Amino acid sequence: MNKLLVISAHSADFVWRSGGTIAKSVDQGAETLVVCLSYGERGESGELWKENPNRTEESVKVIRHVQAQKAADIFGTAIQFLDWGDYPMLISDERIAQLTQIIGDFEPTVILTHTAKDPFNPDHPLAYQATERARLLSCGAGVASAFKNIAPPMWYSFEPHQPEICDFKPDTFVDISSVFDKKIAAMNCMGAQKYLVEYYTELGGRRANHARRISGQKDVKYAEAFQSHLPRVTTTIF
Amino acid sequence: MNKLLVISAHSADFVWRSGGTIAKSVDQGAETLVVCLSYGERGESGELWKENPNRTEESVKVIRHVQAQKAADIFGTAIQFLDWGDYPMLISDERIAQLTQIIGDFEPTVILTHTAKDPFNPDHPLAYQATERARLLSCGAGVASAFKNIAPPMWYSFEPHQPEICDFKPDTFVDISSVFDKKIAAMNCMGAQKYLVEYYTELGGRRANHARRISGQKDVKYAEAFQSHLPRVTTTIF
Amino acid sequence: MNKLLVISAHSADFVWRSGGTIAKSVDQGAETLVVCLSYGERGESGELWKENPNRTEESVKVIRHVQAQKAADIFGTAIQFLDWGDYPMLISDERIAQLTQIIGDFEPTVILTHTAKDPFNPDHPLAYQATERARLLSCGAGVASAFKNIAPPMWYSFEPHQPEICDFKPDTFVDISSVFDKKIAAMNCMGAQKYLVEYYTELGGRRANHARRISGQKDVKYAEAFQSHLPRVTTTIF
Amino acid sequence: MNKLLVISAHSADFVWRSGGTIAKSVDQGAETLVVCLSYGERGESGELWKENPNRTEESVKVIRHVQAQKAADIFGTAIQFLDWGDYPMLISDERIAQLTQIIGDFEPTVILTHTAKDPFNPDHPLAYQATERARLLSCGAGVASAFKNIAPPMWYSFEPHQPEICDFKPDTFVDISSVFDKKIAAMNCMGAQKYLVEYYTELGGRRANHARRISGQKDVKYAEAFQSHLPRVTTTIF
Amino acid sequence: MNKLLVISAHSADFVWRSGGTIAKSVDQGAETLVVCLSYGERGESGELWKENPNRTEESVKVIRHVQAQKAADIFGTAIQFLDWGDYPMLISDERIAQLTQIIGDFEPTVILTHTAKDPFNPDHPLAYQATERARLLSCGAGVASAFKNIAPPMWYSFEPHQPEICDFKPDTFVDISSVFDKKIAAMNCMGAQKYLVEYYTELGGRRANHARRISGQKDVKYAEAFQSHLPRVTTTIF
Amino acid sequence: MNKLLVISAHSADFVWRSGGTIAKSVDQGAETLVVCLSYGERGESGELWKENPNRTEESVKVIRHVQAQKAADIFGTAIQFLDWGDYPMLISDERIAQLTQIIGDFEPTVILTHTAKDPFNPDHPLAYQATERARLLSCGAGVASAFKNIAPPMWYSFEPHQPEICDFKPDTFVDISSVFDKKIAAMNCMGAQKYLVEYYTELGGRRANHARRISGQKDVKYAEAFQSHLPRVTTTIF
Repeated sequence: MNKLLVISAHSADFVWRSGGTIAKSVDQGAETLVVCLSYGERGESGELWKENPNRTEESVKVIRHVQAQKAADIFGTAIQFLDWGDYPMLISDERIAQLTQIIGDFEPTVILTHTAKDPFNPDHPLAYQATERARLLSCGAGVASAFKNIAPPMWYSFEPHQPEICDFKPDTFVDISSVFDKKIAAMNCMGAQKYLVEYYTELGGRRANHARRISGQKDVKYAEAFQSHLPRVTTTIF
Repeated sequence: MNKLLVISAHSADFVWRSGGTIAKSVDQGAETLVVCLSYGERGESGELWKENPNRTEESVKVIRHVQAQKAADIFGTAIQFLDWGDYPMLISDERIAQLTQIIGDFEPTVILTHTAKDPFNPDHPLAYQATERARLLSCGAGVASAFKNIAPPMWYSFEPHQPEICDFKPDTFVDISSVFDKKIAAMNCMGAQKYLVEYYTELGGRRANHARRISGQKDVKYAEAFQSHLPRVTTTIF
Repeated sequence: MNKLLVISAHSADFVWRSGGTIAKSVDQGAETLVVCLSYGERGESGELWKENPNRTEESVKVIRHVQAQKAADIFGTAIQFLDWGDYPMLISDERIAQLTQIIGDFEPTVILTHTAKDPFNPDHPLAYQATERARLLSCGAGVASAFKNIAPPMWYSFEPHQPEICDFKPDTFVDISSVFDKKIAAMNCMGAQKYLVEYYTELGGRRANHARRISGQKDVKYAEAFQSHLPRVTTTIF
Repeated sequence: MNKLLVISAHSADFVWRSGGTIAKSVDQGAETLVVCLSYGERGESGELWKENPNRTEESVKVIRHVQAQKAADIFGTAIQFLDWGDYPMLISDERIAQLTQIIGDFEPTVILTHTAKDPFNPDHPLAYQATERARLLSCGAGVASAFKNIAPPMWYSFEPHQPEICDFKPDTFVDISSVFDKKIAAMNCMGAQKYLVEYYTELGGRRANHARRISGQKDVKYAEAFQSHLPRVTTTIF
Repeated sequence: MNKLLVISAHSADFVWRSGGTIAKSVDQGAETLVVCLSYGERGESGELWKENPNRTEESVKVIRHVQAQKAADIFGTAIQFLDWGDYPMLISDERIAQLTQIIGDFEPTVILTHTAKDPFNPDHPLAYQATERARLLSCGAGVASAFKNIAPPMWYSFEPHQPEICDFKPDTFVDISSVFDKKIAAMNCMGAQKYLVEYYTELGGRRANHARRISGQKDVKYAEAFQSHLPRVTTTIF
Repeated sequence: MNKLLVISAHSADFVWRSGGTIAKSVDQGAETLVVCLSYGERGESGELWKENPNRTEESVKVIRHVQAQKAADIFGTAIQFLDWGDYPMLISDERIAQLTQIIGDFEPTVILTHTAKDPFNPDHPLAYQATERARLLSCGAGVASAFKNIAPPMWYSFEPHQPEICDFKPDTFVDISSVFDKKIAAMNCMGAQKYLVEYYTELGGRRANHARRISGQKDVKYAEAFQSHLPRVTTTIF
């Protein structure tokens, strides 16, 4: 059984960076879960604060919760909100334990999250670090032990806003052409500036251009790019 | 149609480094071709020269040809010998054109060859360079052109003798458990020292141990390791 | 006196990859020269061969010459064609000497060319290698010598089609907003598929988005990205 | 308005590693601020402890404060002391918040600090980490938000004692010839062993030698070297 | 006086990864100390938990203590147990101070520990980080200071289970042929699965094969591999 | 028997970059041989051309030969001149064979040469490439073969003029304090500008400073730095 876990620093990241892959996975019969570490209520809710600088953080969280839930519904995925706060997000041993528990309970076969480096976002690298450690603690050293031990999930970073300065080097392009309408619909729920929808639509088309050049597969219209953190084990070289 | 091309600097390399994957590919219905750039008659035929230092290079080539043909027959693969000479192997524009022609005619979907770096073998990096250039010349820039243009094949380096000092970092493990008996039979044709068969049998088992730890797939008994030179285009993240 | 030399593997590369920077430099009073190593007549003239597969290479070169000259005229730059052939481009000691002579005569303060690596183009890395060596031979070791010695020019790689797999990591973004109309006009001379003009227009906008995020300079509308190969010497940290 | 912020782990680092650039920036009309995270009272005050092993840490701090203030006065820069302690320096969420506040208040356009790695100093990498995180928290994700958001400052590492083992690769040389007398005067205030003044005078001359060889600018007599952490946005390639 | 300190995350790591080098050092007259940060009671004691899932952690620790002590006795080395817990191991300022004290008291000339990266073990990278920081705090900046300052020890990572994905690149092979019987005897004390003893015996033989190929020294039968973190200072290039 | 081979692109490089290590090796009873690929008559004889721009290349070679021979005599080393020409140096299969023969005849245990990269010298990287290939061809794959096979020599790059931009990362510092007077005497034979002798004297002192900080060995007064290209095989970790 394929199971996909997406760990999103703020409540919109999963849509921009992996929405097509989530929708595709649901279509392929996989079980999926999105975990939003925070709502991005302070640092990533620009439009809401611009509309009304006197809002409370609580009211921003409510709006962001509703938006993310709508996007999740469009994809057909489960979603969970940890409300860890943003700018600064703070990681503690308890929060690592909470995330370890979630991974141990869900038993994902694949995890997607942010990159280890991002010179324009303080929270994305923390999401990476928390995921790296919680994943290790949930799957142990591959031997019987004092605690529940899941099979080690594959894991990938999804694409950051500026790939090169985040040391993002994609090694896996997923063809999301068949579900791109869902990604557009979900992006339109996020209440972000219109240009962001254009930006990520264009990105989907450009990564598809790359995928066509690499593979010769001429029917890839939209793609998402990922970087794996582990070798692939397979039964065929093709 | 899956088509595998293996470009081997000397006439035994394809057996030690990718024999299981060749046999597996044949079993899976792929078309396969091994191209041996040289017989390794001067630098890689130690046992033959030790037996009889007065041999001629020509006689060594004949023996090496027969051995490699036997191994290819066990795998069920086509094989071709270019007889470019070894220690030193010399690359020229004409030889690049010859290899480009072979790639253009065979139209592989996957190419396997040596690593770019090998501080203990002067010919392996040349095989890499020749393959890199011939592959590029055969598949062009992805647009219509004055010459035949094949779809760009994926390509990988197979495992060198000392991985770390060759900057070999495997990202793909192929499970070859079901055909490992063929790899052993082929290795035993090569007339090499017995310890080499043991060395590569042990390597198959160790890479399988790694593959099990990475994936949790407990039934991998033997594996071969490869490093890809291009991203993978896929329809699923699983 | 600022002098810009652009070394372009095929006769269209300089437009897509550095046209804005050439136009900007001309506007700023610099002297500029574009050197096209080949016309790209075999591998990069897809539209012409698709229109008429029976063309001769000579006729393709003539058309490509005219197109590149028109683009150069729009930018207001000098241009020179070396006609070295493409797919394969071949480099010889004589060709290196020819390029060394050109660099020594023009005495550029900045050189732009391709990246050292490009897994989808066999000629681009050769242009890089030829430039690297000719630049070194023209400027010597910084001491008096038996031959003319120019001041060492700065040099940069311009952006390849797929930056990450070419190991392209931009460290310099040039704001080309004020001349972007000229870049569009020049791109429209190249007789390429319409999508390429869109592709590079979009790229200009995206690199400007990155430049704005990096610098906070909100009025950058279009930018080109470069990677330097040498440290910068400056009189100020700002 | 150019504004330079220098974040110095101990109260002498800013003099050895960036004194010329501070003086030059003041001369060029920039506003400058040096922040000393600690006095280096335990681990970097060897001469004082050698003179008198029975001193108290408090008395060492007073002497170091006076020395650093004198150096700052020579450069004409503001200076601030955070007294975080050294060997070990400890970083907490509160200290990150304190540094974030300082950056947000000063609104630097350029920040200078230590390298991420230093196998001979436990505090320098912490200064790097604190600066990296505080910078990110002060400038946000480039959108309107719940808190004050400054324009993202450029930032650089200055030169460590042993560049290669700190992975320091300079990409920017600042000509400090015109203010080198001030750097010497400031170094002479620091009460360090005489050989250190010689060491850093020689370093200034050697980096100038490199700068001359790179650029052909023959009048650079003294230089300081820096490594940038972000691309440069510019209006010209020259 | 040569003094070797081995810092082992769990109480068996020192045997598999550096047992031969410990035994060899003792034979050569060095003083040696093994410090086990934890017993590996939760995550690395698979055989014990498989035998009896109802054991307590305390009882596992007792068994592991006895096993490690036996191995240490075979090597003839001192050993110390810090009982920091495993899965998760947690590092605090106090624990860093404890390790700093141990290093300062023992004054090692060489330290061995884990790699900085291990995608299959959460505790190994922590052991690396703790060692890196404690080593720096114990040896200071090389000047007189407020606290005891030892001469900076060389330090190395020993070989992890999967070298390539841990970025382990060995630069030092120690010939352990003369003491390999002791390493086997010690491995047999560890109560681990039999295959692990075979795995590490095979590893010793393979690294010896590499060592013979690198050096031409034909009598190396077993070797252990290490990666240094600092340059070597020597009186001879041979 | 220790045997040191130094492969010097131009006839002065061996003095500046490895003179101390040659002298030290002679003192230690090793056999040594310096091979000068060219005289550096065109690009590295600035002082001679400045004195008299009308000299012939032949006359420059004679002077350079005498100078290098004097330096070799001071060190007590054999020296050989291949006269391959400089700026450009050209490498051919015949020249590789010539160098292979020299290596095979001398049977060095250690080889020293230039770095693989040097953005300010066209000949240094060629010396590296020629050495790399000739070394491999002389020592084969470690098995009996059709030709003479020497034991694989260790090999190192010596320090280039600007270490960081040549990707030079020293991992071995040789203490040359006891022979530094010979290095100064030899440098004074080279007829170069006086500042170069100062530059390399200062470099020797600075590398000794680094060596003292790394090792705690307080009596290192002068050192030369090298980067190894292969792991070290040793009988002790100390």
